[in-house]
Amino acid sequence: MKALQTACGEQHVLTAHHALRAYESDGLLQYAVVPRAAVLPGSAEEVVAVVRACREHGVPWVARGSGSGLSGGALPIAEGVLIVLSRLRRIVEVDLANQRVVCEPGVTNVAISAAVGPTHFYPPDPSSQIVCSIGGNVAENSGGAHCFKYGFTTNYVCGLEVVLPDGSVAQLGGKEADLPGYDLHGVFVGSEGTLGIATRITLRVVPTPESVRTLVAFFATPAQAGLAVSEIVAAGVVPGAIEMMDRLSIDASEQMAGAGWPSDAGAALLVELDGPAAEIAERFDELSAICAVAGSSEVRVARDAAERDVFWRMRKAAFPAMGRISPHYYVQDSVIPRTRLAEVLERIDALARDAGLRVANVFHAGDGNLHPLVCYDGHVPGEAERAEELAGEIVLACVRAGGSITGEHGVGVDKKRYMPRMFGEPDLAAFQKLRCAFDPAGLANPGKVMPAPRLCGEVPGPYRRHPLEQAGLAERM
Amino acid sequence: MKALQTACGEQHVLTAHHALRAYESDGLLQYAVVPRAAVLPGSAEEVVAVVRACREHGVPWVARGSGSGLSGGALPIAEGVLIVLSRLRRIVEVDLANQRVVCEPGVTNVAISAAVGPTHFYPPDPSSQIVCSIGGNVAENSGGAHCFKYGFTTNYVCGLEVVLPDGSVAQLGGKEADLPGYDLHGVFVGSEGTLGIATRITLRVVPTPESVRTLVAFFATPAQAGLAVSEIVAAGVVPGAIEMMDRLSIDASEQMAGAGWPSDAGAALLVELDGPAAEIAERFDELSAICAVAGSSEVRVARDAAERDVFWRMRKAAFPAMGRISPHYYVQDSVIPRTRLAEVLERIDALARDAGLRVANVFHAGDGNLHPLVCYDGHVPGEAERAEELAGEIVLACVRAGGSITGEHGVGVDKKRYMPRMFGEPDLAAFQKLRCAFDPAGLANPGKVMPAPRLCGEVPGPYRRHPLEQAGLAERM
Repeated sequence: MKALQTACGEQHVLTAHHALRAYESDGLLQYAVVPRAAVLPGSAEEVVAVVRACREHGVPWVARGSGSGLSGGALPIAEGVLIVLSRLRRIVEVDLANQRVVCEPGVTNVAISAAVGPTHFYPPDPSSQIVCSIGGNVAENSGGAHCFKYGFTTNYVCGLEVVLPDGSVAQLGGKEADLPGYDLHGVFVGSEGTLGIATRITLRVVPTPESVRTLVAFFATPAQAGLAVSEIVAAGVVPGAIEMMDRLSIDASEQMAGAGWPSDAGAALLVELDGPAAEIAERFDELSAICAVAGSSEVRVARDAAERDVFWRMRKAAFPAMGRISPHYYVQDSVIPRTRLAEVLERIDALARDAGLRVANVFHAGDGNLHPLVCYDGHVPGEAERAEELAGEIVLACVRAGGSITGEHGVGVDKKRYMPRMFGEPDLAAFQKLRCAFDPAGLANPGKVMPAPRLCGEVPGPYRRHPLEQAGLAERM
Repeated sequence: MKALQTACGEQHVLTAHHALRAYESDGLLQYAVVPRAAVLPGSAEEVVAVVRACREHGVPWVARGSGSGLSGGALPIAEGVLIVLSRLRRIVEVDLANQRVVCEPGVTNVAISAAVGPTHFYPPDPSSQIVCSIGGNVAENSGGAHCFKYGFTTNYVCGLEVVLPDGSVAQLGGKEADLPGYDLHGVFVGSEGTLGIATRITLRVVPTPESVRTLVAFFATPAQAGLAVSEIVAAGVVPGAIEMMDRLSIDASEQMAGAGWPSDAGAALLVELDGPAAEIAERFDELSAICAVAGSSEVRVARDAAERDVFWRMRKAAFPAMGRISPHYYVQDSVIPRTRLAEVLERIDALARDAGLRVANVFHAGDGNLHPLVCYDGHVPGEAERAEELAGEIVLACVRAGGSITGEHGVGVDKKRYMPRMFGEPDLAAFQKLRCAFDPAGLANPGKVMPAPRLCGEVPGPYRRHPLEQAGLAERM
């Protein structure tokens, strides 16, 4: 503890239980652990000092950005240190000529677009973008509504300065897009805090499209809307975003955003085109026609920026608004091949009926990235367990349809038990080889991502034993 | 040797010196080494058997595709086995609904586009695309003329089945774009054969653009053409390709492709727009206007597909055509920030004058990816050495301008000495951690990429000594 205080100043090391309670969960509230200590370094040098102190004392650590993650990736460890990066929030450089921004990990996602606007913007846009940090986006390879066209965080990270678990500092990648050597910045993105801490991040930003047009088309059922999605994509249209909301989500969002969407529609499809004005004008007519042919009961076109904002508020409010129609909910995140949308949605309906629970569906339809929201009342005995079980069945149904256990929220603690459903033993062993190469002592976010705690047994050194097994080590710091 | 024959059949194991001579170099003819044996497996299972046999006997190996690489990445090892993958040339699956192709590593680059055309195509297009293999493209993270808009190989590889140096087989990634777990398929792309052998590759293909239009604009100097490039990009135009050729390259290519381009132009800028017809028509006029304002002496627009082909033949002939104006040449490959094109081109001119050699410049101007061709006559004593030295000075000039030692040809043997100019010790150590995690014995393409032979000393096991130091081991196979 003394080492942490020396590194960051006494006032930036929290050890009081009530202060630590603020950090016991990330956005996945179903899990909570109070850490031994939380430390808030104020510079990359202080991060290095903290990581070195942890290494020296064999204490595991977890890095945390804004704590808005949805897979428990920033869940603390009881005997460990939580390294909170929210004080590292400087935008270091804006280089529009080369379409690059260099920033610290605690900068919020939305602050990047603000710093490069109005001429440029940063495409990956999680719904939590007002609060979520770029460092967290890097850890989870975050997506968002615009990823169908623009790609995920990994497509925008060019370079990283990282503090590795051994306390060394490496520069991975740089301002250029494709450097020689191994693509370690690529592997670092999405590594969920298990390979080190990014202290400086170089991002690519792109020119703001000349024109943006947004419509919402209403359908009788999500399956019908899913068909429209397939036809839009098959026609070669690449929308900036294609988002779907089902009846339950629309109901919830209306209570917060009040768009006045038709109360009899079974699904709403929000489609946005962006690009050169000449292209958009022509493509937009085509898009409206496809929706009509696919059976849309009504197509509303946003007439101005204000109406576009209302459309997007409906979509982005869906998670928080769910609280208005259900005391608790569990956000699921999985991916299916776009071509199997209708079939999987029906399967989810059937599973929900069997469990006697309601499931709202909001999703990035272009990517086939579902976000089923399992509604439950935690005050009713057994209902939380039933909800978790249902969420698990939904994940497995997606995997069986050729999909993935997570689209953009990460594995964290929440999904690690499903990893063997997606990966064979040699594939998991390959992951483990990488992890042990960078963290032989198992100090960086242990207990996350991998299905069972594994030791880097083959690798010798002073940290052979798993630190979680070494009782009381934290006391000695 | 017996193990190899058992694995692949006697006729697929070459040991005769004259047969092995065919494999002594890849496309970088300045280096040549005859391997102990070359083996041509006919299936993934045979690749596994070969890698396991090499592991068992501690024999190093090098994987080779078509041998068209330009950094000596597939240069054999005298005491090692060359694993030639050209028999693995099946396209396993074409799934246009999900925009995916699954193929073996020996399939040529151009065969992918042929298999998915005319509705789709595979964007990364090295000039050698008629012969180069997808496996080689994966190893080198190959680029091409269309990478400015479309990105490199790494942006199109979704999944890999790989044989790791320990003989295990892992599935990295898959058909979906963003899977949970570490992005190992991302790190495998561009790893230059040092992490294993890809035996099955899942690629993303994209819809063929509705419309393509191509022009060539002539300028007094490459610097002036470079200015036009900056202005095109600054205007928000994203061409499918922006390629530049200087006077010497035009002269060479005219002898092969005979386009009849003006004989007094100092530089030709080949610009291609692709996309929706409505967009292209409007953008093309804008593009022509930008070239005129930037001082172009003439703009020629390809009137039809035949003329477009002539334009592209001029560009793609530049390397082979160089043989018509110089007995030998050395292809350099480096990257500079686009904004510093003019300055670096002048520096290259000055360096060439000092060395008394001619340097032709052909390059992917949008990416700032230069391909200076250093011309020399190997029959004149000392000239080959002077050419190599000049090539080295050009690389360093690019690094000093904030660039990179390689854009798309890889490090191989040719550039490894420059790695410390780009990377600090902790960065190289991070690379080495990864390499040792997957190849602790140092059997997979040793002596490539990293600046000095390093041993995975910290890792114990039967392969502690570097195999190149273990004389005669190959004899025992």
